[in-house]
Amino acid sequence: MRDPMPNAFVAGAVTLPETEAQLVARRQRVLGPAYRLFYETPVHLVRGEGVWLYDPEGNAYLDTYNNVASCGHCHPHILAATAAQAGKLASHTRYLHDTVLTYAERLLSHFPPELCHVMFTCTGSEANDLAIRLARAATGGMGVIVTENAYHGVTASVAEFSPSLGPAVPLGGHVRTVPAPDARAGDPAVTFTAHVQAAIDDLLRHGIKPAVLIVDTIFSSDGVFAEPAGFLQGAVAAIRKAGGLFIADEVQPGFGRSGEAMWGFQRHGVVPDMVSLGKPMGNGYPVAGLVLQPKVVEEFGAKARYFNTFGGNAVAAATAMAVLDVVIGEGLQANALKVGAEFAAALRGIGDARLGEVRQAGLFLGLEVVTDGQPDAAMAARIVNGLREERVLISATGPKGHVLKIRPPLVFSGEHVGIFTERLLRVLERM
Amino acid sequence: MRDPMPNAFVAGAVTLPETEAQLVARRQRVLGPAYRLFYETPVHLVRGEGVWLYDPEGNAYLDTYNNVASCGHCHPHILAATAAQAGKLASHTRYLHDTVLTYAERLLSHFPPELCHVMFTCTGSEANDLAIRLARAATGGMGVIVTENAYHGVTASVAEFSPSLGPAVPLGGHVRTVPAPDARAGDPAVTFTAHVQAAIDDLLRHGIKPAVLIVDTIFSSDGVFAEPAGFLQGAVAAIRKAGGLFIADEVQPGFGRSGEAMWGFQRHGVVPDMVSLGKPMGNGYPVAGLVLQPKVVEEFGAKARYFNTFGGNAVAAATAMAVLDVVIGEGLQANALKVGAEFAAALRGIGDARLGEVRQAGLFLGLEVVTDGQPDAAMAARIVNGLREERVLISATGPKGHVLKIRPPLVFSGEHVGIFTERLLRVLERM
Repeated sequence: MRDPMPNAFVAGAVTLPETEAQLVARRQRVLGPAYRLFYETPVHLVRGEGVWLYDPEGNAYLDTYNNVASCGHCHPHILAATAAQAGKLASHTRYLHDTVLTYAERLLSHFPPELCHVMFTCTGSEANDLAIRLARAATGGMGVIVTENAYHGVTASVAEFSPSLGPAVPLGGHVRTVPAPDARAGDPAVTFTAHVQAAIDDLLRHGIKPAVLIVDTIFSSDGVFAEPAGFLQGAVAAIRKAGGLFIADEVQPGFGRSGEAMWGFQRHGVVPDMVSLGKPMGNGYPVAGLVLQPKVVEEFGAKARYFNTFGGNAVAAATAMAVLDVVIGEGLQANALKVGAEFAAALRGIGDARLGEVRQAGLFLGLEVVTDGQPDAAMAARIVNGLREERVLISATGPKGHVLKIRPPLVFSGEHVGIFTERLLRVLERM
Repeated sequence: MRDPMPNAFVAGAVTLPETEAQLVARRQRVLGPAYRLFYETPVHLVRGEGVWLYDPEGNAYLDTYNNVASCGHCHPHILAATAAQAGKLASHTRYLHDTVLTYAERLLSHFPPELCHVMFTCTGSEANDLAIRLARAATGGMGVIVTENAYHGVTASVAEFSPSLGPAVPLGGHVRTVPAPDARAGDPAVTFTAHVQAAIDDLLRHGIKPAVLIVDTIFSSDGVFAEPAGFLQGAVAAIRKAGGLFIADEVQPGFGRSGEAMWGFQRHGVVPDMVSLGKPMGNGYPVAGLVLQPKVVEEFGAKARYFNTFGGNAVAAATAMAVLDVVIGEGLQANALKVGAEFAAALRGIGDARLGEVRQAGLFLGLEVVTDGQPDAAMAARIVNGLREERVLISATGPKGHVLKIRPPLVFSGEHVGIFTERLLRVLERM
């Protein structure tokens, strides 16, 4: 069994500069063997601003990958909000504090009215973990349905339904996987629904009551599948008919990235029972959450409690509020729509046989790398590493590792698309 | 089934001032029913400094409860470190960055040499969750042994061995509980070892291989049990003999609070296989971690990876480093030893029959409330709420809810002990 992570650094494969070799050695010594770096030659970063990241020599890297700093690295409005609240109080939710409530109200105003509660955690993993706890309590079921290369988090119970963690991390006996909604294998509205129904049937046949269907609404780790919008509806109806709930994992597509809507599920015209949020929510500050319909938590909340020491603390709330200010105030969703479309068009316009399908919603793009039309993970890795030499950061994804994963900060512009395309062309020419 | 949380606010029991009534209504509307406030009349806080917290009217509350802001609320050195790094970069551990390594090295220098790796998470729950994942991989076992009213966290798999969450949160079939090491029930070195051995035997009899014994080394939620130091040794030997691991949960006692040592396990003369850290690690910034012996992660790390997006990010590392600066530079462990002893002596000196045993290590104190020598949770609640009226913050703990839980920021002084004692006397006089 090997860890299937694409774009992982392999110690010893390349001779590193002395500073970086020392950092790698220190990492292995103190962080141990479970940590992974990106790239054949890892990137050493010391500073960030907007869409640019800088190494110790001052070289600028175009960040076309990091979806946490969605408002741009080190956004001054967000930094100021964090510092101001941290200087006053970082209290938790067992005392009264206005900020967490004001933030919750503002956040919920961007959701359909059915989704009117929010619970705060620190990470997307914790949000999905809480979702599963609540779903089990609400449905009395245990069964979980996910896509074949899904990633939903790293807690013990969430890792059990995150097949992208690889064969050394076993799936739970109560977990069933379904193929990703790839339009080339038939209309996803039909095929995805059929696969989910088959998974439901298989759970029932094994005496396992279905609890949830959970999907990343842009299917990031499966290789990015966004079209045609609306294809989720049949699968959502099927899980509900079986007594289960639908969870939209918006940790990656959320907060405007998908361009057409604030949340990926809105593109599909469905209203989830729960929605998990994370990565870009604090632009780097650890804050995440779970938005939910009241029925899901009603019984749990009457008998049990949820408390997360740092979740929803006053600094997290103030920071997340400033992120919303920027997402709305700077029109980042509209920018993702516009620049994302330009980005996809530019990639499609390259006209190189090694580049396959471009799949995209807003500023979340998947670009296949193929040889004779077949997935080519090795070539994808060469492109990822070639771009790293050109000082452009991306990575690869998908069960075969052959899909370039492109998801820059949402302040990305047409000019940045031009820089990316020019450097990609240079990499392709050299190969 | 009811939620057994001591000191929980009950809506409608008391008429609240209008501002606070509105905040409570907004909380119920947006956060839903699983959140709990403290106190009959919740406390509304807007500012903190050192050991003092302030309400909107500017009234000062003596914080004798919050162990997160262990260096004191809003410590300027820590705020400055957070802001400085946040203004540069909040990168994650898949790029090279010096700060997380420097912090890891400094942190590990405070542990016995066997404990030479650290993995970073955002919360203590995530740290204990990771510990269980690693323990299962390393031992091939599933069985977990905890104390009867233990609290280790809120992820699905950790909640399964956190009995203090109450009867509505079921324990796992692979979980066994043992009585807390109460010296009044016999020498804990003998009784605790015997109980753990009995739990091991019971797991084996059910065909469940023991994976871990995990204890909060000050047994906070069981009611605070610290003496005689050393009593853990037999139990640790027993779990190891059964092929399991010993995890010290230092989320509450760690970072000098126990006075005699940086970590609670050191008081007992044992070296754990893993040590989980959390709450005070970032003085309010969400950062936590798991310190471990290499053998525990060796096989897991060869086949699988661990990545936590915000865990060990540059800002978390810089903040946690500043916390270490303060803990060491301001001598907070020595202060906890000295002031904790004065605090215990002052409480013992009150000489009121309603106050029972004082159990203490450093600035973690448990004070029993009794009537005719028997646990009296109702009276403990009256004292907690009486102190709240006197503007002193504490809470209650233990399976019977009758133990006053006293764990102030570690910058607490003898003068603060005097204020506490004086106000406690006023409360007792009025009752």
